[in-house]
Amino acid sequence: MNQKKQFKKICLAYSGGLDTSIIIPWLKENYGGKIVAVIANVGQDDDFDKVRDKAIKTGADEVVVADLVDEFITEYIWPTLKGGPIYDQKYLLGTSFARPIIAKKQVEVALETGCDALSHGCTGKGNDQVRFELTYKALAPHLHVIAPWREWDINSRESAIAYARQHNVPIEQTEAKIYSRDQNIWHISHEGGALEDPAQEPPEDMWVLTRGLAETPNEPEYVSIGFEAGVPVSVNGQELSPGGLLRKLNELASRHGIGRIDLVENRFVGMKSRGAYETPGGTLLVTAIRELEALTVDRETALMKQHMGIDYARLVYNGLWFTPVREAMDAFINKALENTTGEVRLKLWKGHALVAGRTSPFSLYSTKLASFTMGELYDQKDAEGFINCIGLPIKMKALLDAEREQQSKPEPVRG
Amino acid sequence: MNQKKQFKKICLAYSGGLDTSIIIPWLKENYGGKIVAVIANVGQDDDFDKVRDKAIKTGADEVVVADLVDEFITEYIWPTLKGGPIYDQKYLLGTSFARPIIAKKQVEVALETGCDALSHGCTGKGNDQVRFELTYKALAPHLHVIAPWREWDINSRESAIAYARQHNVPIEQTEAKIYSRDQNIWHISHEGGALEDPAQEPPEDMWVLTRGLAETPNEPEYVSIGFEAGVPVSVNGQELSPGGLLRKLNELASRHGIGRIDLVENRFVGMKSRGAYETPGGTLLVTAIRELEALTVDRETALMKQHMGIDYARLVYNGLWFTPVREAMDAFINKALENTTGEVRLKLWKGHALVAGRTSPFSLYSTKLASFTMGELYDQKDAEGFINCIGLPIKMKALLDAEREQQSKPEPVRG
Amino acid sequence: MNQKKQFKKICLAYSGGLDTSIIIPWLKENYGGKIVAVIANVGQDDDFDKVRDKAIKTGADEVVVADLVDEFITEYIWPTLKGGPIYDQKYLLGTSFARPIIAKKQVEVALETGCDALSHGCTGKGNDQVRFELTYKALAPHLHVIAPWREWDINSRESAIAYARQHNVPIEQTEAKIYSRDQNIWHISHEGGALEDPAQEPPEDMWVLTRGLAETPNEPEYVSIGFEAGVPVSVNGQELSPGGLLRKLNELASRHGIGRIDLVENRFVGMKSRGAYETPGGTLLVTAIRELEALTVDRETALMKQHMGIDYARLVYNGLWFTPVREAMDAFINKALENTTGEVRLKLWKGHALVAGRTSPFSLYSTKLASFTMGELYDQKDAEGFINCIGLPIKMKALLDAEREQQSKPEPVRG
Amino acid sequence: MNQKKQFKKICLAYSGGLDTSIIIPWLKENYGGKIVAVIANVGQDDDFDKVRDKAIKTGADEVVVADLVDEFITEYIWPTLKGGPIYDQKYLLGTSFARPIIAKKQVEVALETGCDALSHGCTGKGNDQVRFELTYKALAPHLHVIAPWREWDINSRESAIAYARQHNVPIEQTEAKIYSRDQNIWHISHEGGALEDPAQEPPEDMWVLTRGLAETPNEPEYVSIGFEAGVPVSVNGQELSPGGLLRKLNELASRHGIGRIDLVENRFVGMKSRGAYETPGGTLLVTAIRELEALTVDRETALMKQHMGIDYARLVYNGLWFTPVREAMDAFINKALENTTGEVRLKLWKGHALVAGRTSPFSLYSTKLASFTMGELYDQKDAEGFINCIGLPIKMKALLDAEREQQSKPEPVRG
Repeated sequence: MNQKKQFKKICLAYSGGLDTSIIIPWLKENYGGKIVAVIANVGQDDDFDKVRDKAIKTGADEVVVADLVDEFITEYIWPTLKGGPIYDQKYLLGTSFARPIIAKKQVEVALETGCDALSHGCTGKGNDQVRFELTYKALAPHLHVIAPWREWDINSRESAIAYARQHNVPIEQTEAKIYSRDQNIWHISHEGGALEDPAQEPPEDMWVLTRGLAETPNEPEYVSIGFEAGVPVSVNGQELSPGGLLRKLNELASRHGIGRIDLVENRFVGMKSRGAYETPGGTLLVTAIRELEALTVDRETALMKQHMGIDYARLVYNGLWFTPVREAMDAFINKALENTTGEVRLKLWKGHALVAGRTSPFSLYSTKLASFTMGELYDQKDAEGFINCIGLPIKMKALLDAEREQQSKPEPVRG
Repeated sequence: MNQKKQFKKICLAYSGGLDTSIIIPWLKENYGGKIVAVIANVGQDDDFDKVRDKAIKTGADEVVVADLVDEFITEYIWPTLKGGPIYDQKYLLGTSFARPIIAKKQVEVALETGCDALSHGCTGKGNDQVRFELTYKALAPHLHVIAPWREWDINSRESAIAYARQHNVPIEQTEAKIYSRDQNIWHISHEGGALEDPAQEPPEDMWVLTRGLAETPNEPEYVSIGFEAGVPVSVNGQELSPGGLLRKLNELASRHGIGRIDLVENRFVGMKSRGAYETPGGTLLVTAIRELEALTVDRETALMKQHMGIDYARLVYNGLWFTPVREAMDAFINKALENTTGEVRLKLWKGHALVAGRTSPFSLYSTKLASFTMGELYDQKDAEGFINCIGLPIKMKALLDAEREQQSKPEPVRG
Repeated sequence: MNQKKQFKKICLAYSGGLDTSIIIPWLKENYGGKIVAVIANVGQDDDFDKVRDKAIKTGADEVVVADLVDEFITEYIWPTLKGGPIYDQKYLLGTSFARPIIAKKQVEVALETGCDALSHGCTGKGNDQVRFELTYKALAPHLHVIAPWREWDINSRESAIAYARQHNVPIEQTEAKIYSRDQNIWHISHEGGALEDPAQEPPEDMWVLTRGLAETPNEPEYVSIGFEAGVPVSVNGQELSPGGLLRKLNELASRHGIGRIDLVENRFVGMKSRGAYETPGGTLLVTAIRELEALTVDRETALMKQHMGIDYARLVYNGLWFTPVREAMDAFINKALENTTGEVRLKLWKGHALVAGRTSPFSLYSTKLASFTMGELYDQKDAEGFINCIGLPIKMKALLDAEREQQSKPEPVRG
Repeated sequence: MNQKKQFKKICLAYSGGLDTSIIIPWLKENYGGKIVAVIANVGQDDDFDKVRDKAIKTGADEVVVADLVDEFITEYIWPTLKGGPIYDQKYLLGTSFARPIIAKKQVEVALETGCDALSHGCTGKGNDQVRFELTYKALAPHLHVIAPWREWDINSRESAIAYARQHNVPIEQTEAKIYSRDQNIWHISHEGGALEDPAQEPPEDMWVLTRGLAETPNEPEYVSIGFEAGVPVSVNGQELSPGGLLRKLNELASRHGIGRIDLVENRFVGMKSRGAYETPGGTLLVTAIRELEALTVDRETALMKQHMGIDYARLVYNGLWFTPVREAMDAFINKALENTTGEVRLKLWKGHALVAGRTSPFSLYSTKLASFTMGELYDQKDAEGFINCIGLPIKMKALLDAEREQQSKPEPVRG
């Protein structure tokens, strides 16, 4: 390998796992300079003090632990919940929208600490590298980017462990890691292992957040979620902080086995992959907001928002968070949901979040219209004119077709 | 009321219920002529001989019972399953696509029997009147249409019963009908009663096809559904007729409590309404085809198909079945799903249809690409160029913004 | 005809033409009450004092002349110019967006003067009735609406003149009116006469605003139009009021024969119709803003905006101006065009508005990238990775197809 | 540079220009093996015998000249004309759809002649490399691809000439080439030179196919184009071969100065670029088919087709020709245009192709509906019901808003 360009200081998105740990000595060896490790707390189950210690032991020169939970929820999760939370018809984007906020924090630290390069531990075949690097380009286009997994020769867990031993990187005495996982306050993802064969069911012991159906209570539990302009604000009538609200819903949903997904998805880099996801509280929120929108958003807006939601989710999935088009879509959505205020009651039972009632001060559902005696608001006779106008092109075409058919018939022979 | 135009013979879509039964004497009284009653078997639980008898007793001059089940499945349900089976994010269109086939049969009978008018029993505030009459316009634009519910003064169950008694229409000795229902081989719908308040949960005793979760087996059951080019063809490896297949899936899904939906929906005629639906087998099919598409349809096609699906469902819901745009969409979809062949294994359990495996001879999922050693097919270094091209507009914008900001800074004062 | 409901005071959108003039006595005769005539100045060539006099002579009890030109331009034309100015690929919506502002003013006057009904002079087969009445519904849903052309028996110019003579409505001694026209500061429309046959070219003498090509100067003329965030603000470097700017552009464009359109269009009420339009200044603006967007809006945003533009124009055409979805689209568009600031130079010549240069401080076009030596910003080698990722699904499919084909070949017979 | 992998035989898309000429010796020097040069005749003004001679003189071992004109028109141009001929609102895709057919032929020759690699002369910053290579991946994923312009150090015309002289590549004694051009039977493109500054007007002497307005006839000329199911088949009533038809229209349109475009466009590889295009006959066809569609395609289909056209053009521009989604769109479009048969008369005058009449046996335009006495087909009273249904959500919202406002008013203080 040629002598690489050397850097003064490299800012690394550090998770504490084996993958990002071996990057620290590798960067020093290959690119020189000091390492600033940024540890992002986006709500994953981690002991951040231990992660910090590990970073230092592994050679990091500076370590920043950043608590991003609240910003993550309010600036990334809520907008996506409102705009388009579902990719490929099932995936709730848990990993996708965590990458931009981590990368953004990393850029901020890099600029504050005078780094001239950014690095991450994503592989070269996944979406996360795209999400990190597109954020870098948007926020610090002048910084150099180092993606070790696209450069080095380490290409298996075994070679990673070997490299770690050679470079005194502490290795945890855990059993062999089967699945590749990513967790935050919204979800946990699982990839690899038995999942690599889409013909196989995910093994029950793969799931970590949610109970299996056999373990869930036999009795349903009701929960009521309050929204203001599309933003979740309360649970069972009690206003909660964003983090408190999501943790509460995670707890409830996990107990009832809600939020598991098994998906064959279309990666941005061009291949299909298989993943499994647990998004307990998020599943309640996605269910609930949809019901409240059904009550408060008119048909034309709902239709356009449904189309936009497909594209919103696609852009979030693809890492195009810091883009003008996402901001423009947010403007549309904020306007469209300005009246999506109210409460949705869900019945949690055996893995289901069943809607059990929706109310809103801005409800467009009119009991008067739904009932028999709707005279003042709506005259049934209006439907005739409506049908006649809607049907005019259909009728015209049918008449013209018939006329043409008539004309093309051979003339009867006359005697 | 002025003397109405009189007709020679009126063809009525007849269901046997009170609503269409009182139409027979009313038509005779108001429009003269003879009545041809068309009874469409689209798979609902009915004794068609009894319905025929009732039509005759009520005054119908001719009665035609038409078994439309197979045509309904292959020409209406399968295309919609492939094209866009979900309206307003939840409704599986069970009533929507039954109307065009009933109306089409009605037109055929009307033409064969020399009718000069068509009539139906739909109210003036719902979607069904639109679906019937748009079909009439497409297939027999010259026939007159009579929609009694938009004309007469009967506006409650009580006045309907009174009219029936006056005209010797047999009334069944059943308990008071709470819900308005529509059933066929795909689903049953429920409207009215407690459902009129969207804040209320549907009462357990409203559901008729599917077991409540408390009654479902504690053990899961697996079922495998086979497709050819997007069309369901087999269950557990056994090829079945369309009707046999759907009945089999209905039975399985009902036992496990699958397919209940509670929905606030946007009617075509402009109001929001509340409905509840049971679509047991259909829910399995919609779940299964989505999984098979995930495996066999490439990303660009899937994305466009997802957008088209929204519009497909909208058109079906709105009754625009016999239209050029639906036919053009079918052409797109048939091409897009030409390789959607294979099997999907579902785990039926406590109201869930969980995907438990998908296989296809045309699978675009490559285990080689998913695994670590993907070298030949995909070089991880390619991702860098990909990200750089995708990110070029983002980087350009960031650089240009920075440049402009730089320029707009006030020049430092020099000493 | 039954005795109609009587009204206290009816507010009529009054134009001064024969069509709305006979409405005044007709309303009095049929609905009783007083008439408030609202005359909207949206920039049409009219002597508003004469129109006011005529209203009074014809029987109006109160007359309000409202100068709406500036509000029309800034609140209706500019948003549509930015959002979606083209319906059915050609029509620049001149009549469409004038209706909501006239109806809005009419509602304001009605409420101020204590009217209990609103009336307009639109026929029952066009779009304008929809545009007026949807605005009424949005802004004063409690007021009654009277649409004489859908009620009365007058159905030809002759019967209208007869009615006018009977009711002392002054009739202008003009030659027979061939075309139905609608004019405002943005455009003039022509319908009827020779236009009713889409196989016929519009007669040269039909056009009234723009010169025929044979009459236009042989020398081109350049004009430069300045925009701020998508809003036109200057001509040839000179800032102008909205009205001043549009009049200046109308003058220039008309002289050069720019802005004629001949169109078969799809009306909202279900039929196809033929219209001809002259939109001189508007054509310059639509041309110019498109060029500035090409420079300042990134590809993803431009693509979504192009789709949205189709729907924006459709909604404006259909009269759905005062709707949540239009407001949500405006939010999107305002964000998307926040940097669409700069100048576009047009060469006006023989009916053409040819772009002759665009500049913007927010230009995303980089001469550095366009030139050969683009190394720092873009490495040509990146394209390889880009192509490989984009092409991965294509390659995969080709390989899988080849593999399948290979397998399905009959095994060679061995000797 | 490391020793490169060597190939047995390389198939090169050869144009005869300096750019592809120097590739021949460079490939031999760097990759060894023999060179098969494929010269594609897609209707450009070239002496193909001379190009063949030059290929041989420059070192090609085999040369294939392929006349692709008819296939190009019928299999690439016509489908795009029908589906979506306009990218970035102006560009008629002349270069875009020529690349796939050239690359397809190249692949065929490569397979017939036993090549193990493919090569082309596209630069690393343009769209053409993508279009070539995506086609290679679709049709011959196992062949290696060599893109010299992304590999070598030649990065200016000067260095290219120097390399040519060193390797005995004949250089034509022409004046300095200012513009980079690409021509075929549909268009010619211009890039570079003065065009690199989007603030500059294209110089008059840049244009080569079409007359400047000053040189065009002062008298208009009429031409009538006949279509069958969206495919152009005749000119002035005379059936012509695809090539004959397009050449005839090119001649007519060029004489009248029709088809010039000046565009800032969004390249697939991420940058904006500037191009100028002349598409004389194509402009007539795009104008004509739009008019015939207006007459023969119903509103719902037209609306969906308009959306699809944006994506069709995007895919063609991006080189995604051989993809399932393009084939699925073709299926939609062929169905949608099955009745787009008829004639469009155009008036060619001073750079304009003005529609002067359209006729079709499948016209959905009804003169009866357009005229006053439309009673039988359409009752003006129907419009009221139509407006009331369309307006119901608007009215409901207004009433609910008013009710809420009423309720939120502070209660009056009582004494």
